[in-house]
Amino acid sequence: MAILKGNAVVGQSGGPTAAINATLAGVIRGAASENSPIDKLYGMRNGIEGFLKEDFFDLSSFFGSEKKLKLLENTPSSFLGSCRVKLPESSKDAEVYEKIFSIFEKYNVKYFYYIGGNDSMDTVMKLDGYAKKIGYEIKMIGVPKTIDNDIPITDHTPGYASAAKFVATAVKEIERDSSVYTLKSVTIVEIMGRDSGWLTAAASLPKALTGKGADLVYLPERVFDEEAFIRSVREKLDIRSHVVVAISEGIKYKNGRYVAEGLKNEVQDAFGHKILAGAARSLERMIKKEIGCKVRAVELNVLQRCSAHILSLTDIKESVRVGKKAVLYSFSGQSGKMMAFRRREGNYRVDIVAVDVSLAANKVKYVPDEFINENGDGVTEKCIEYIKPLIKGEIKVKYEDGMPVHITLE
Amino acid sequence: MAILKGNAVVGQSGGPTAAINATLAGVIRGAASENSPIDKLYGMRNGIEGFLKEDFFDLSSFFGSEKKLKLLENTPSSFLGSCRVKLPESSKDAEVYEKIFSIFEKYNVKYFYYIGGNDSMDTVMKLDGYAKKIGYEIKMIGVPKTIDNDIPITDHTPGYASAAKFVATAVKEIERDSSVYTLKSVTIVEIMGRDSGWLTAAASLPKALTGKGADLVYLPERVFDEEAFIRSVREKLDIRSHVVVAISEGIKYKNGRYVAEGLKNEVQDAFGHKILAGAARSLERMIKKEIGCKVRAVELNVLQRCSAHILSLTDIKESVRVGKKAVLYSFSGQSGKMMAFRRREGNYRVDIVAVDVSLAANKVKYVPDEFINENGDGVTEKCIEYIKPLIKGEIKVKYEDGMPVHITLE
Repeated sequence: MAILKGNAVVGQSGGPTAAINATLAGVIRGAASENSPIDKLYGMRNGIEGFLKEDFFDLSSFFGSEKKLKLLENTPSSFLGSCRVKLPESSKDAEVYEKIFSIFEKYNVKYFYYIGGNDSMDTVMKLDGYAKKIGYEIKMIGVPKTIDNDIPITDHTPGYASAAKFVATAVKEIERDSSVYTLKSVTIVEIMGRDSGWLTAAASLPKALTGKGADLVYLPERVFDEEAFIRSVREKLDIRSHVVVAISEGIKYKNGRYVAEGLKNEVQDAFGHKILAGAARSLERMIKKEIGCKVRAVELNVLQRCSAHILSLTDIKESVRVGKKAVLYSFSGQSGKMMAFRRREGNYRVDIVAVDVSLAANKVKYVPDEFINENGDGVTEKCIEYIKPLIKGEIKVKYEDGMPVHITLE
Repeated sequence: MAILKGNAVVGQSGGPTAAINATLAGVIRGAASENSPIDKLYGMRNGIEGFLKEDFFDLSSFFGSEKKLKLLENTPSSFLGSCRVKLPESSKDAEVYEKIFSIFEKYNVKYFYYIGGNDSMDTVMKLDGYAKKIGYEIKMIGVPKTIDNDIPITDHTPGYASAAKFVATAVKEIERDSSVYTLKSVTIVEIMGRDSGWLTAAASLPKALTGKGADLVYLPERVFDEEAFIRSVREKLDIRSHVVVAISEGIKYKNGRYVAEGLKNEVQDAFGHKILAGAARSLERMIKKEIGCKVRAVELNVLQRCSAHILSLTDIKESVRVGKKAVLYSFSGQSGKMMAFRRREGNYRVDIVAVDVSLAANKVKYVPDEFINENGDGVTEKCIEYIKPLIKGEIKVKYEDGMPVHITLE
């Protein structure tokens, strides 16, 4: 079979991570590899949203040097920009597909790489289905990324490990910070991941591995029981001066209400506004009311996904590798696939395999029962063993004038 | 003059920083230096609060190795614990002084080093005054620390530069994170420093030095004008998709009300509770109401003072140096002094000098007019030149299992 020759296009979609550009660097390297059938590699601005406006440019010539690619690997956020576009079913609305494929044709695009989360895999699946339907020969490959780690089939997702390393480090440092006074205190750290608790689970690492860290950890996979919570905090405060609690932003009461919306049965304010304080703020008020000790809410917020000054070496290496592999794999003639990590038994090592993208599109992988402890206030040894190798290794980031150097398009 | 021989005691006080332990490492090295007249160096737990309970221990023997001292240099927060005790005037209440000096006598304490902020310098001043009054021979030296950088006389304070490096880096990364969508958005970053804007000023570095960062920066030294603010944000949004604003937690309206307490003339809620949402949250609501675009509040919170995984090499070197110098200086027979940095003209370099502690005690150094721009929404070139050398250089922190290693007492 002759290898398909033509141009390629790559896009980034969904929420940014600290490693999504490392995957882009891998794609660029793959497209430039020896015997590559790719002539030009275009980078689409703001994913499919920009592509529809023919807003793309020659990526290979922008990244002419290995030095620039190295900087790209350590630049947080999506170098190409992102979007949150979800394609309609082509059977219901073919217009956008016709537009996209006319652009493919116009620019002789034969390879399509899309780096994103569950929704982005849906885009790959739909475009691949449409290509097959109309008989347009193009190889479409999805490459996963998300700090949420909630994409099925793959052992973990690029971007998760660097976010987990930041969370584990921040929680370890916050525990130190909270330890200095003799006064009883509670610190509540709020972590991203509305539906799945993978990132919050990383807050368990410092305590599990060094003895100091978050004392209580609550994932959204379990109903949040405020009475059990207050009881647990009291018990911990009985034996030590400072207690650190880590929670997912998405924890909910039994009645289905998000903790972020306020206390369990709290009425809305006089104007009927919902109090959307955030989960940590709600618990801060709860503890003030129920226990009355000093309490502080800390939201790690976007720093979790953009702190590229502290990256997991394992994550960045794998993120580059999976990007490159996606391109090399596409030369084999396959399409409609997502690249996935498969972890080997024994010492940590992953293989990169291709799976049918439909297995990942629009699906969510939750933290399994065997990773959460019986009380629902921490994780199991098995969970620690799962996360531990992912956050290993550090990247020596380039600094200038005391700040990390990033490469940007404009 | 014979050099005073005896034991020494060192304490840490006030809010923790990422560099206060580096100063402690310097004190330990100074006490163990050649020809040191110090027999034992005690570390007081939780500052004066613990000292009053005779809660101290032999620091020199705990830190027997250079390896441990190196770890101490990179461990955030106060290794010895802290307190917020303020001593009464000895003329009004001598009891606590009598207690302290009886402990000095009991343990043959002849040297006293206190690492802290403006309030801690007050403690040094008062204890020194009392010692002179009762004729107890002891050498008392204060060593400044605070992320707020608000201690007078010294060019800057140990701990400020590492916090400033974190703030500058975080703002640089947050700007990248906020840049990915085409949708108009405003990101508001809240920075510590209730009364002085030194740390918030560091948020100006990325834009000034790399072209990307915070577009508007508001310090507490200027009245916050909400109309000018909304106008400026609108103007920035006209020319770009994403705007980043950095504010001090302590900015106030003209009527004296903290922005953190809510919008300017906002009534309190139906129950009469003050809305204490934080300054960034207040501005988030303000922008939603007035402009209606996507807006996100990010509080850097305690990470500013405990992120020891990103330290300024300049800060850590100086922090160690000033601790050691304090001890060596005390051997000269002086007392009631605070060590201070004096910046030389030309290429960045500081000398460490001793100043009368009364010049710093209870006094606050604000960001001067010449450092703030005319509009009050940014800093001047002079301010950038002041901060720039402080955040330079990186520390290679030791990691284990993917997380920074800290040394702790328990």
